[in-house]
Amino acid sequence: MKILVTNDDGVRAPGIRALADALRAVAEVVVVAPDRERSAVGHALTLHHPLRASEIRPSIFAVDGTPTDCVNLAIHSILRFKPDLVVSGINCGGNMGDDITYSGTVSAAMEATLMGIPALAVSLVTSGRGENYTAAASFVAKLVHMVAVNGLPGDTLLNVNVPDLPQEQLGCPVITTQGKRDYEGKIITNTDPRGRNYYWIGNGEMQFRDIEGTDYYSVKRGCISITPLHLDLTNYASLSKLKTWDFLS
Amino acid sequence: MKILVTNDDGVRAPGIRALADALRAVAEVVVVAPDRERSAVGHALTLHHPLRASEIRPSIFAVDGTPTDCVNLAIHSILRFKPDLVVSGINCGGNMGDDITYSGTVSAAMEATLMGIPALAVSLVTSGRGENYTAAASFVAKLVHMVAVNGLPGDTLLNVNVPDLPQEQLGCPVITTQGKRDYEGKIITNTDPRGRNYYWIGNGEMQFRDIEGTDYYSVKRGCISITPLHLDLTNYASLSKLKTWDFLS
Repeated sequence: MKILVTNDDGVRAPGIRALADALRAVAEVVVVAPDRERSAVGHALTLHHPLRASEIRPSIFAVDGTPTDCVNLAIHSILRFKPDLVVSGINCGGNMGDDITYSGTVSAAMEATLMGIPALAVSLVTSGRGENYTAAASFVAKLVHMVAVNGLPGDTLLNVNVPDLPQEQLGCPVITTQGKRDYEGKIITNTDPRGRNYYWIGNGEMQFRDIEGTDYYSVKRGCISITPLHLDLTNYASLSKLKTWDFLS
Repeated sequence: MKILVTNDDGVRAPGIRALADALRAVAEVVVVAPDRERSAVGHALTLHHPLRASEIRPSIFAVDGTPTDCVNLAIHSILRFKPDLVVSGINCGGNMGDDITYSGTVSAAMEATLMGIPALAVSLVTSGRGENYTAAASFVAKLVHMVAVNGLPGDTLLNVNVPDLPQEQLGCPVITTQGKRDYEGKIITNTDPRGRNYYWIGNGEMQFRDIEGTDYYSVKRGCISITPLHLDLTNYASLSKLKTWDFLS
């Protein structure tokens, strides 16, 4: 089995190291990841300037671009084979609920899904720097085996959020739905040394709704959350209502 | 009615001007948009450095950030009111099918939706610079009126794609679903003046599947496409299958 590993925290982050180490025990692994942290870039693609990739260690490449760039470059230029699986992570911090639309971790897995390659996005839900990447990585190695055996549903990636707990305290994995978050923006306004105003966007407070069956609900109770995501954003339930609008009047 | 207008082609693009002009006839309009083109940034948020906003003309602000940054700054800092509607566009080029995950235009509307503000994303489907922004904008003014009367479904934005045709040639608007595109990546590999390799990601060829009822199908036949999008990516159809996986073995 051949696995491409990427992330959005940068090629030197502890999460990607733990992930690559755990997967090397079960597969051939190539790491292609941003040369620095690229959080909150969403599904950004670099079109306006060229990108460079350097092999900083055998089978580990650093790219001066976004996670989505990394998957593109890896598949089309760097790798000499099409991987069986792309695993993005392990992100430092959860990617749950509406926040996944900002997530570089999830977007890298989306990019692979668009290319028809099975993909996982993996995040450690921590408010600090994360202590239990190894426990999370060892679960991912097990999950990779299950994906190899069962296959993934078409056009669908798995978004995995693991509580930051030692292995023996992790609850059983749960298949979940994407949760909801109440919006809580935070912007700092200040004046720079030259007297000009500036704005700085903060992360804000996470205000997830504690709805049974969702990613957040599981993680809050110490269980690993696995959410199947697809790329179809159509709100099918609203189609019939909208079709009654009279555009001719 | 108070409308915030933004886009990802930059505050000076012809599409945003046509849009703001058409909406000024029916509402109070404030424009807050990137100071330059910010295409393919997806739902990127600038967290690592401060942002600046300058009022380049009355009620027109240029921000050195992404479309998502613009919506955040507008709502939390620049505007002195909460707008009734956010309209993002008119983008130069369609935003249909799987490509919407990269779209700055759609992401700005998503950001407003997350904040609980009704939103529209509007794109002119053109392979050139776009000739019929005025026709598209005049349709949007009409659509805005319908949204004011009917309201939008909860947590849902409308993704509008208008063929680049004169008003009299535009077909009747159609409520559509998000289409599918076959992946066609394109990367140019070359050597820089110092002999180092670089990679440049291209837009690739659009290979939409011509499926009845989709955004692409309508636009190809000269009709305006209106797709209701929500932010829930859960693939509900796959939940029961995944729940049969045996994680205890």
